[in-house]
Amino acid sequence: MKWKKIRTALLLVVSTAVLASCGSSSSSSKSSKYTTTGDATSGTYQGVIKNGKYQTSKSRGVNVAQNDNTFNLKSFESGLVNVSKKVFSTKSYIFQEGQYLNTSTVENWLGRESKSNKTGLNPKKGKTDGKRNPIYVQQIEEQDYMKQSGDNLKLHGITIGIGLNSVDYYQKKTDGPKYTQKISDAALRAYGQETAQKVLNRMRQKKGLKNVPIVIALYKQASNDSLVGGTFFEYSSNSGTKLSSWKQMNIKNAVYPKASDSTTSNSNGQTDNNTFDNFKTQVQSFFPNLSGVTAQAQYKDGNLSGMHITVTTQFYSETEITSFTQYIAQAAVKYLPSGIPIDIKIQSAQDMQAFVYRDSGQSKFSSHVFDSY
Amino acid sequence: MKWKKIRTALLLVVSTAVLASCGSSSSSSKSSKYTTTGDATSGTYQGVIKNGKYQTSKSRGVNVAQNDNTFNLKSFESGLVNVSKKVFSTKSYIFQEGQYLNTSTVENWLGRESKSNKTGLNPKKGKTDGKRNPIYVQQIEEQDYMKQSGDNLKLHGITIGIGLNSVDYYQKKTDGPKYTQKISDAALRAYGQETAQKVLNRMRQKKGLKNVPIVIALYKQASNDSLVGGTFFEYSSNSGTKLSSWKQMNIKNAVYPKASDSTTSNSNGQTDNNTFDNFKTQVQSFFPNLSGVTAQAQYKDGNLSGMHITVTTQFYSETEITSFTQYIAQAAVKYLPSGIPIDIKIQSAQDMQAFVYRDSGQSKFSSHVFDSY
Repeated sequence: MKWKKIRTALLLVVSTAVLASCGSSSSSSKSSKYTTTGDATSGTYQGVIKNGKYQTSKSRGVNVAQNDNTFNLKSFESGLVNVSKKVFSTKSYIFQEGQYLNTSTVENWLGRESKSNKTGLNPKKGKTDGKRNPIYVQQIEEQDYMKQSGDNLKLHGITIGIGLNSVDYYQKKTDGPKYTQKISDAALRAYGQETAQKVLNRMRQKKGLKNVPIVIALYKQASNDSLVGGTFFEYSSNSGTKLSSWKQMNIKNAVYPKASDSTTSNSNGQTDNNTFDNFKTQVQSFFPNLSGVTAQAQYKDGNLSGMHITVTTQFYSETEITSFTQYIAQAAVKYLPSGIPIDIKIQSAQDMQAFVYRDSGQSKFSSHVFDSY
Repeated sequence: MKWKKIRTALLLVVSTAVLASCGSSSSSSKSSKYTTTGDATSGTYQGVIKNGKYQTSKSRGVNVAQNDNTFNLKSFESGLVNVSKKVFSTKSYIFQEGQYLNTSTVENWLGRESKSNKTGLNPKKGKTDGKRNPIYVQQIEEQDYMKQSGDNLKLHGITIGIGLNSVDYYQKKTDGPKYTQKISDAALRAYGQETAQKVLNRMRQKKGLKNVPIVIALYKQASNDSLVGGTFFEYSSNSGTKLSSWKQMNIKNAVYPKASDSTTSNSNGQTDNNTFDNFKTQVQSFFPNLSGVTAQAQYKDGNLSGMHITVTTQFYSETEITSFTQYIAQAAVKYLPSGIPIDIKIQSAQDMQAFVYRDSGQSKFSSHVFDSY
């Protein structure tokens, strides 16, 4: 465990203690009252508010400490919500942060199995030479899905994501050099499926979870130097104690512009890279001193399903940013693929200066310049 | 002149040289072709594109170097656009960055008058003790307003903003301690009006500017430690060489929550501070570990005309941010004033995480979470 992780873990202990004391003061009011964050746009879940406070995860922040690459963190959590949507409709279910796995449970699970940590989901270390067993399980997230039941909310489903390393980073001694150990897709999948069965067994033993539908989804972590996060590749939806069959998810992430020496696995990717290059060239020739135009793209079943674009510029004046934002909104319509959600951050060294976006289901781009009085 | 300013000035020389070379290559094409950044939302100007490139200011970036407080920079430029809208309708005029005052001209104007700098708009230094003359004129910005004329665009108006210090910061020797010299409202207004006449005379002597309407607007700079920028307080719209009468602008900025020992100059401000405090309390009690909820507010003629709110939070998870954003959008409708533009940045230490806003003329709040693949 790296120092950064330990330090974050300590912070979490402190903040959890603060949270716990907040919790007890609010639960002293007699009737626990649930409301939701409400008015969610279609296709997103409402969240649970208990006694006027947001119901935070019982293992809040553990995954922040587990990810050196924040892209893995964000895409893991958003991706898990997307897996959940396949099983628990946003119309009838309400989202609640995980309440069954607490910080110490998840931290123990993420460790290696040992005499002092019998619940560790990662293998014993083995030898430190070539035979070392890697850390497979890097992060775990629980999400609860609720339904209204009279004045109360009742649990009707749980989704658990398991993040599996494609590269394990380790040190042979503290402050020593860093080593990497690659894990093949086949190996991480096999280990993930085995782990999923263990997790399902453990969940079923918890009070009230005997018959609740439990979805378990496997995620392949991107490497720490990746400019885009990893992806979920399969999930199983379970009503009993034995894992049901796995449903495959064909999701691929890409970064544009592609390095000139990279090979593209599908022809769509090549076309989209050319399309993006065209947009990039237009924007860069329009506006002097842009330092970068890059994109994260995601494919579902081979089709481009969305893009996050970042344009980095030097800040010269607010009027330039305003004009530039108008131009980008125009160029986006003209040069970028239609029918998918796209957002474009216009960023200077210090701050986001402006923002152009088209959400899922919208036909027009909206824009906003971050002005100041 | 501070080192930071000199360094920025050097950067500008380099980038101006780069720009100049770009300019000459594009102007070698025979017909200069103008288009606009187009499709501007109602109430905003379109900007000028020449030969496919954005027409940047001839004094691009000078004001970046002149402002230690970026709030002064942004509010000066946006404020000047708002002054222009009073005279040049967004329906019939097109915005162009200033093309008549170049970098060296503006830099000379911003200096003190001396043998080597006869065009300096600031007074000779005087003695270094109590009798020192302050730097009054801190920044100058030119904006051009164009109309379509056949295939071309023709200049139909110029707006010039003059930013006047309310506090002048200086050092008696390089790397020495910093001193401040306060300037009264009466003194900065008198000096600004005198300067405006000089600027008008100089503009009238430039080729093609003899009869063009020239608006000159005076801006009072906020202090360097202010959490909100300064404001324009008067402008004059001129067709000849003698300054016309000044039209007053009653604009005030405020920061909420107010410090408990601050006195509020108007009762609206006190009410709005209470309203904002209420919103802040709601949001903070809802969501644990928020480190701050602050706002910039602007008043026109005593009425609240808009707010920029920043909510600072620690990043725990993407799902929390999503729920929090939903909640903020709901709380904004419930607790914040209706009928005015408001934007709310949800910010972690590193990045903007999400964003809720209601633009001018919109009745509903929109929101966006900055997700990642």
